[in-house]
Amino acid sequence: MADGKAPGRTVTYGGAVSLDGYLAGPGDDVDWLHFSKDVMEVMARSWKGVDTVLMGRKTWAASVSLGGHKDAPKEGDTPPKMKTYVFSRTLKSIDRRGIELIDTDAVPFVRDLKSKPGGRILLLGGGELAQSLLGAGLVDEVGLNIHPLLLGTGVPVFRDPGHRVKLTLTECRPIDGGCVLATYRVA
Amino acid sequence: MADGKAPGRTVTYGGAVSLDGYLAGPGDDVDWLHFSKDVMEVMARSWKGVDTVLMGRKTWAASVSLGGHKDAPKEGDTPPKMKTYVFSRTLKSIDRRGIELIDTDAVPFVRDLKSKPGGRILLLGGGELAQSLLGAGLVDEVGLNIHPLLLGTGVPVFRDPGHRVKLTLTECRPIDGGCVLATYRVA
Repeated sequence: MADGKAPGRTVTYGGAVSLDGYLAGPGDDVDWLHFSKDVMEVMARSWKGVDTVLMGRKTWAASVSLGGHKDAPKEGDTPPKMKTYVFSRTLKSIDRRGIELIDTDAVPFVRDLKSKPGGRILLLGGGELAQSLLGAGLVDEVGLNIHPLLLGTGVPVFRDPGHRVKLTLTECRPIDGGCVLATYRVA
Repeated sequence: MADGKAPGRTVTYGGAVSLDGYLAGPGDDVDWLHFSKDVMEVMARSWKGVDTVLMGRKTWAASVSLGGHKDAPKEGDTPPKMKTYVFSRTLKSIDRRGIELIDTDAVPFVRDLKSKPGGRILLLGGGELAQSLLGAGLVDEVGLNIHPLLLGTGVPVFRDPGHRVKLTLTECRPIDGGCVLATYRVA
């Protein structure tokens, strides 16, 4: 992470995608995801040192529907180690431990967050928040687990950030299931 | 190529793409392409055994503007070894050696072509013809040279083929310039 870039915390974006660049199919379907020991190792590594998670409203909704984040905060609870920020201007409130709703512009918020001490930051999900943050130069790493299929349509991992974004390949190898792991540093 | 699939000629599709899946940027710009000894080897291999090239009107136009295909046929010319089919319903004629304009539906034409004896078939260019042929199950191999950048917009390598297309990874390795070579057999 300490590679000559501006000091501060790194923001990593990515996930499992189809070869045509979808994080999920139409209807948010992810039945095509291939799990393996390789994936578990990659995920363990990508979560290492992470203390902050960023996501947009749609990813939050998908996360809730998958059964995560069940516990509302109680008096006397110890604060959770992981801090999650959900960016939305339409949600009214989120009453879950360690989850904070941010209804202001994500770019200055994340810029400020990166200037503060802390661990790695993981940017999850559907592309719109990533589009803003990639466009603003706030994403430091991109990691894709490219699955061997074309979905045709769905939730794109990349939307137009408004300008070219140069990357530096840091790792590339085939992993189980005919998947390709490709990780990049944003140049 | 002889891997248990239906006998006949294989159709290979692909090319150099950005990580966000564009064959060219807006305005057809390809100034981001990285050439290297690796690329020359990959291209030499991908053209080996090819005797037929398929492309759509836009790829043909780009090919002409790049200065290829200059010679019109003359009486007594030996026929060129490479046969090129350009699919278009709007072009009136193409007066170049070895180039044939096809103004009928590409799917039955290519299905028929594949049933005839001959060498490998290379499908070039911009995605619309590939969309039809992938959708119809007529593409056998996909090969991408994934470049380390996001273009944001441009000419997509994949358009929705109308259904999922399963692939089998046949090769994956980093090549010069931070590019990733990934080749697939259509399952």
